Amino acid sequence: MKELKNLMGWRPDIKVVDCTLRDGGLVNNFFFSDEFVKKLYLTNLKAGVDYMEMGYKASKELFDMTKFGKWKFSEDEDIRAVIKDNETDLKISVMADVGRCDYKNDIKPKSESPVDLIRIATYINTIPQAIDMIMDASNKGYETTVNIMAISQAQESDVEIALEMLGQTPVGCFYIVDSYGSIYPEQMTRICDLYLNIAAKYGKKVGIHAHNNQQLAFANTIEAVGCGVDYLDATYSGMGRGAGNCYIESLIGFLHNPKYNLYPVIKFVENYINPLKEEGITWGYDMQYLFTGLLNRHPKSAIDFTKDGRTDLSELYNEVILLD
Amino acid sequence: MKELKNLMGWRPDIKVVDCTLRDGGLVNNFFFSDEFVKKLYLTNLKAGVDYMEMGYKASKELFDMTKFGKWKFSEDEDIRAVIKDNETDLKISVMADVGRCDYKNDIKPKSESPVDLIRIATYINTIPQAIDMIMDASNKGYETTVNIMAISQAQESDVEIALEMLGQTPVGCFYIVDSYGSIYPEQMTRICDLYLNIAAKYGKKVGIHAHNNQQLAFANTIEAVGCGVDYLDATYSGMGRGAGNCYIESLIGFLHNPKYNLYPVIKFVENYINPLKEEGITWGYDMQYLFTGLLNRHPKSAIDFTKDGRTDLSELYNEVILLD
Repeated sequence: MKELKNLMGWRPDIKVVDCTLRDGGLVNNFFFSDEFVKKLYLTNLKAGVDYMEMGYKASKELFDMTKFGKWKFSEDEDIRAVIKDNETDLKISVMADVGRCDYKNDIKPKSESPVDLIRIATYINTIPQAIDMIMDASNKGYETTVNIMAISQAQESDVEIALEMLGQTPVGCFYIVDSYGSIYPEQMTRICDLYLNIAAKYGKKVGIHAHNNQQLAFANTIEAVGCGVDYLDATYSGMGRGAGNCYIESLIGFLHNPKYNLYPVIKFVENYINPLKEEGITWGYDMQYLFTGLLNRHPKSAIDFTKDGRTDLSELYNEVILLD
Repeated sequence: MKELKNLMGWRPDIKVVDCTLRDGGLVNNFFFSDEFVKKLYLTNLKAGVDYMEMGYKASKELFDMTKFGKWKFSEDEDIRAVIKDNETDLKISVMADVGRCDYKNDIKPKSESPVDLIRIATYINTIPQAIDMIMDASNKGYETTVNIMAISQAQESDVEIALEMLGQTPVGCFYIVDSYGSIYPEQMTRICDLYLNIAAKYGKKVGIHAHNNQQLAFANTIEAVGCGVDYLDATYSGMGRGAGNCYIESLIGFLHNPKYNLYPVIKFVENYINPLKEEGITWGYDMQYLFTGLLNRHPKSAIDFTKDGRTDLSELYNEVILLD
């Protein structure tokens, strides 16, 4: 039984992290208007959101800058153009992927940047590179988190070893990442226990980043809250790759911390998110994502199915099954 | 901590109840074609579904038969026209609402009917009438369940008294009904404990009927499975009033009972459910349903908002809040 009393009470350590520009950017190639970004920032301020992720810190060697909006690269000057020096309680984060970020050059010292937090995304087999990135960002003066992706396909014993290695770095928070949206709340409880035990040993926080392939992103997030997880990723109306993420409106509605306000979130969805959908930007639960979630697969085949406008679900199911 | 091992194993007592025609009928006024109903029946057979609900047993005095499809009334001859004498393991149910069913006349003896189960739906303040309907149906030879609706607005102590009264009847199963989609999984655990304790005392089963206003219908259903609830309501792609119900495809994908098969469910969604959506039949999660779920209100205002094609979500939120 979870900490039931917390459905009435609240935990001051909770941090809500808005990833709309970053995970949502994966569905529109990061082409957000400056007005959208500015209003999102103002909304997050009013809503009491703790961190706003501006986008990726992607390598300009690896990615063609003409093919993506600027939030794939999240340069300090582009961030400053929208939020100035951000003299507010809302902290700013960017995500840096192992192997896709020229971090030594592209991440400037914290003293020169409006960014507060560098979130390092890694797979289980690239932990040493992740540690190098943690050290680099930490030495430059940033807060850091580490997001081990696709853990539903990793061995628990490997995750344990990775967390023990990461515990010995200055990283502030271990993120549980359900990249394939395949984890059920009962399993989430076990995973939280694993992460929280090692985190406690090293004085780290734990976070969660969920995907909605089985319509469980919100359920898994609040399950994790019940277990003691503090950093909660969410996006406006779940905007994010494939089936999307935990809906920030559901999460803000659920949390009882008096600092959070739902009304500005509603206004933003009404005025900025729903119009994106009407323009034809597509994300969110659909049966094709159930398949990849259920079968614990990368959502690529479901995303392609959606993009191609296919309707032959049973054929897709066979294709995904036959990958074995 | 729940019975985690059951994510690997399975419980033979689980029963999946397909309510597509009944709860789904609320969004198309029960105008399903005979072909749809026949294919749904054949799909349920192949999928290993345990009960198929044909519709309501509504009073022909209270409701104008010309304004609704036949599944609002679910007459024995209409059921027989589609499924003949149903000599299969799939059982047939109908729902009878307290105060909206002329049960003494319209429910014939079981020996003359293809129906196996009468599901009696009641509010907390009409338990004596529900008991009279249970006795009537039971004396006529039917299995019965009782579905106490809108319990999120009832007092726990009243629910307890109601269950003690119902325990002394021949009813087979107490249903937990989250009519407003307002219950979180942590609360569901507490509610399941309450129902299961009284059910155990009287040798009854417990069931769950969830709504998806907060995208928690599936999460609450599998939470209930973990607690020991056996009768699980679901509909194809969640088809049901407002935000809809637990998706049967998610549930069948989750359950490990070897009798259940996902593939026929996928085919039915592809060939019969998705075309309904394309015709403009509307149901499923949207932000307006989050409001009524979060605020524990009847979904009527959100349903009207949807029907009227409104987009002013913040204004609706104010309207719902101002009902207080």
